[in-house]
Amino acid sequence: MKKNNKKIDAAIIVIGNEILSGRTQDVNVVNLSKWLNSLGVILKEVRIIPDVENVIIKTVNEMRKKFQYIFTTGGIGPTHDDITSKSISKALNLKYCYHPEAYKLLEKYYEKGKFNIGRKKMAKIPKTASLIYNPSSAAPGFIIKNIFCLPGVPSILKSMLGGLNNKIVGGNIVLSKTLSLRTVESEISTSLEKIQNKYKNIDIGSYPFFQQGKVGVSFVLRSSNASLINKCMNDILKFVKRKKIKIILRK
Amino acid sequence: MKKNNKKIDAAIIVIGNEILSGRTQDVNVVNLSKWLNSLGVILKEVRIIPDVENVIIKTVNEMRKKFQYIFTTGGIGPTHDDITSKSISKALNLKYCYHPEAYKLLEKYYEKGKFNIGRKKMAKIPKTASLIYNPSSAAPGFIIKNIFCLPGVPSILKSMLGGLNNKIVGGNIVLSKTLSLRTVESEISTSLEKIQNKYKNIDIGSYPFFQQGKVGVSFVLRSSNASLINKCMNDILKFVKRKKIKIILRK
Repeated sequence: MKKNNKKIDAAIIVIGNEILSGRTQDVNVVNLSKWLNSLGVILKEVRIIPDVENVIIKTVNEMRKKFQYIFTTGGIGPTHDDITSKSISKALNLKYCYHPEAYKLLEKYYEKGKFNIGRKKMAKIPKTASLIYNPSSAAPGFIIKNIFCLPGVPSILKSMLGGLNNKIVGGNIVLSKTLSLRTVESEISTSLEKIQNKYKNIDIGSYPFFQQGKVGVSFVLRSSNASLINKCMNDILKFVKRKKIKIILRK
Repeated sequence: MKKNNKKIDAAIIVIGNEILSGRTQDVNVVNLSKWLNSLGVILKEVRIIPDVENVIIKTVNEMRKKFQYIFTTGGIGPTHDDITSKSISKALNLKYCYHPEAYKLLEKYYEKGKFNIGRKKMAKIPKTASLIYNPSSAAPGFIIKNIFCLPGVPSILKSMLGGLNNKIVGGNIVLSKTLSLRTVESEISTSLEKIQNKYKNIDIGSYPFFQQGKVGVSFVLRSSNASLINKCMNDILKFVKRKKIKIILRK
């Protein structure tokens, strides 16, 4: 993975009626986000949109200018509702056509005589796009400009990320420390706000949780500066001690 | 629940760094979507955005003009990173101030002397907003114009939806039938596309799945016209029979 010191951002466009209808629980956002963290890329926005051509075109064109990397999930399969590749071709004014290598890969994957129209469709991508290889089920994703198009099936998507590590120029990796306490948010909000005001460059999140019938709060400190995170955590631990709050987890 | 025959749409704005960072798996979208289905409201878009004031303001102002109902989740708690109520007040040019009833509800909920600054903050909402009651933990959500502001904790959010059923004017309920088959998408894509072309008013989704080491495909037919769905399903069953594909589930 190449590196630079700038802040690198990304957005995800989840394309799929099944996510909007509540039929399917998306898990690709979490998986992509964790992978992007590991590359030093900050996920700034996610949009979940339907399989509707003009919505895909509009969203892609808006987002690709706003963020350094765009990832799309879903809609690159063989059926009529898989319209991501065609829509992105239109968004970029590129021909939607067979990619010779994708065609060969798929032709080889299927038995002789079984390479039907639906399967051939999966070899059609925007002209000049390059392939993202799929070690699970042959059908590739693709990269065109700053847009990375991935499938919707989580296990297949995950298997394709390994091949992308050297295609992303990452920035500073955002480090994260968590402190979980046996308290409620409204007991510590003032003390925590003071700390946040002191450490403007650390993103401090406060998240209530319920576990085995008991409530608690997790503080998550995020920054690319490890020593600053440690200093900030020490300041938090001071008021935690003073208030005699029980620490459940520190990592 | 009031009803009309028009198509009613909605969008969700998920506000929270913890969702974008991959720390927390969102489940509110699925829960809200299923609830909206039951009211005849179609979820058209979801945006996941960070706890950043200008992003919240811009997103809310863009979305509230585009969709009939907007639901926000997250950022209405007592800590410094809970900035949804203040940001929405700014977006709408409304004063961000104590709501007398919310103040009383919270004052009553906490022990005497325990109603601190963080807790009081949860009574501050945009002026003229009305409350969404919270049967779990007192702190209310609110409704202002077409925007419904809900908390991020899934169990609390769910407990607040019951009180909203009569605040939403729903449209025709979208019905859904599912047929799961022992096949792969690329075997049936041509037959299915023909059916989709015949039934333009039915939204047919095709979703591959893996279960106990076996692959399969689910077709999901969605429309508010029950007899049309049945006719379409019968046509699908014809080609399923002709192709001798095993039916796993029909519901």
